[in-house]
Amino acid sequence: MDWTLARRAERLNPSTIREILKLTERPGIVSLAGGLPAAELFPVQAMAEACARVLRDTPREALQYAASEGFGPLRDWVAADLARAGLRVDAQQVLITAGSQQGLDLVGKVLLDPGSAVAVEAPTYLGALQAFAPYEPDFVTLAGDDEGPRPQALQAARGARFAYLLPNFQNPSGRCLSAELRDALVDAAAAAGVPIVEDNNYGERWVDAPPPPPLAARGGDGAIYLGSFSKVLAPGLRLGYLIAPKALYPKLLQAKQAADLHTPGFNQRIVHELIRDGFLDEHLPKLRAHYRERRDAMRDALRAHLPPGCHWRTPAGGMFFWVELPWGLDATALLPAAVDAGVAYVPGATFFAGGERHDTLRLSFVTVAPERIESAVATLGRLLEECLR
Amino acid sequence: MDWTLARRAERLNPSTIREILKLTERPGIVSLAGGLPAAELFPVQAMAEACARVLRDTPREALQYAASEGFGPLRDWVAADLARAGLRVDAQQVLITAGSQQGLDLVGKVLLDPGSAVAVEAPTYLGALQAFAPYEPDFVTLAGDDEGPRPQALQAARGARFAYLLPNFQNPSGRCLSAELRDALVDAAAAAGVPIVEDNNYGERWVDAPPPPPLAARGGDGAIYLGSFSKVLAPGLRLGYLIAPKALYPKLLQAKQAADLHTPGFNQRIVHELIRDGFLDEHLPKLRAHYRERRDAMRDALRAHLPPGCHWRTPAGGMFFWVELPWGLDATALLPAAVDAGVAYVPGATFFAGGERHDTLRLSFVTVAPERIESAVATLGRLLEECLR
Repeated sequence: MDWTLARRAERLNPSTIREILKLTERPGIVSLAGGLPAAELFPVQAMAEACARVLRDTPREALQYAASEGFGPLRDWVAADLARAGLRVDAQQVLITAGSQQGLDLVGKVLLDPGSAVAVEAPTYLGALQAFAPYEPDFVTLAGDDEGPRPQALQAARGARFAYLLPNFQNPSGRCLSAELRDALVDAAAAAGVPIVEDNNYGERWVDAPPPPPLAARGGDGAIYLGSFSKVLAPGLRLGYLIAPKALYPKLLQAKQAADLHTPGFNQRIVHELIRDGFLDEHLPKLRAHYRERRDAMRDALRAHLPPGCHWRTPAGGMFFWVELPWGLDATALLPAAVDAGVAYVPGATFFAGGERHDTLRLSFVTVAPERIESAVATLGRLLEECLR
Repeated sequence: MDWTLARRAERLNPSTIREILKLTERPGIVSLAGGLPAAELFPVQAMAEACARVLRDTPREALQYAASEGFGPLRDWVAADLARAGLRVDAQQVLITAGSQQGLDLVGKVLLDPGSAVAVEAPTYLGALQAFAPYEPDFVTLAGDDEGPRPQALQAARGARFAYLLPNFQNPSGRCLSAELRDALVDAAAAAGVPIVEDNNYGERWVDAPPPPPLAARGGDGAIYLGSFSKVLAPGLRLGYLIAPKALYPKLLQAKQAADLHTPGFNQRIVHELIRDGFLDEHLPKLRAHYRERRDAMRDALRAHLPPGCHWRTPAGGMFFWVELPWGLDATALLPAAVDAGVAYVPGATFFAGGERHDTLRLSFVTVAPERIESAVATLGRLLEECLR
């Protein structure tokens, strides 16, 4: 039987990162590639208690079909939580999604036609490129530097359906946009008539100081905002949310209905039960202390072991260091040798929508314990030194 | 700020059924509209124990990012379970989805271009029309009768990307295709080069006798098969699966990755823990007995209270009676009066991709207790009699 594929299926391709993750499951390899949060910090006991309470108090509601918008009290919680971060929204603007990845898919589905321009940072989150790609947009790269995209670049993106921006500890670059740059970017986008899709997976995962308020706080009806519980609780729950301007919300809701009817009420109620009474106020400081130690361990190891000419900045949160190699060294070509030596990373080229920079790589500091970070970075340093010789 | 919508967003529209469900939340209305399974049959205690075991034995694995394909042991279970129903597949062909609704979305995403023909039954599952619609296909209605679509209709659908078929206790018509008709449909589809997308949400929910083997058992590589745990355990878990031919599986998997990375490992492990040792062999007979009683109650009530000229058949499983009204009575126009009288149903017109039949309606027998079914159908019968006078 011959199946005929949709044209958009050509834009679906195996995830490089997932293929690499499989490779690094071999014993003896220290993987700095994956972005797996430290599982030892999952609040297992508290979650077990929340589960038990939900199944004791509201089992039928938790296990029944539910509203596509999401569980009301959880939507209220999200709105209240965002207000604390400087973003005032109505709970009616909150749509609960299957992780923020689904938010990206819904945004692409509702806003992208074949050939639509989408402005993205360079580098940018690979999962967003994968979510948008099947809707066949043309990606336009925003010019920028270590500080972030330039406001002028947004003016040059006039006509784009939206600009996709990750202001907080971006995956992969780790950069956090300054308050001044945020204001300038939002104003430039508004002047150019380019809406913003803001992805904030890592805002609560600062380790030095909280990031400035979200772009959407200034962007108003010109911004969609995506958030997630994956990085503050546990990714295996697949729970995220999007905040949409009221005029846009119904179409995103209908896309959600068509995609999977609703996010599991079971998961939503458990998370709400867990966090309703301020659990995160105690939990997040623990996460921050833990990840600060790992961030510092990687920073120290990079200082000690990477050869001169490598460039990186210490991220103030998130999960990743972004390293630029000297002399045009090709991180993609180098990966097999690194894996043979016992260390894995993600080549940076995969994070570009165009104009790949093969002289970059991403290192995660979250999955591996500090002492193993040290030895893995030392191994990587030796390999790079050999190449430079 | 002006947001420009994708062209496909025009095909996203509010769910009629969900709007009606909201209407029928008013107190005093007996809703025969919704397809909510009887919540008193959710296996709450067993699920609470499974939850506790998963969070005790494999909490980190359950709460961490996981494979897009799904949890290995659950995929194995699905393959083994389908073999019992007559469908032999490799566990590698199983993709775990967020309910079978997501399976429909992925199928549409990978197989439908704007203007692609999709052959559907008349009536057919509304949620499938909603899942496929944003990919802008042209729906082609398969001619048929009370027994199901005619094999010749599949030949006339030559060139369609696929035929979407619900052989078991179809939502909304309740019809179950005979073994002979299944064979004839699969052979006709193969001869016409039309692949089949088979949706089996209700197969395990027979009340008289198990249905014949799935279309996919004969269809082989010419069929995708969709299944769900919603109707055998609980819909609030959002857990389903699709079985794809090996050549097609990678694209569907990549679409799944792009859509939400993976289905919650937490939910998958809980369900596997619950069902691994034969739980369903004890649970399903209880469901069947319970729903048989309600099916019989509605059958008896329809016989007693619907005026002459109404046509329906007693479904041998599933959740719905499908009623055809005499003299061109319009069930859509009649709904407000029915709600005023205290009973709700779903007008049948919503289940047609074209050539709506307004003289039809769908009644659910699963949500409401038998004695209330009786009085609600009596109310409906009085209303219809008044109209016919």
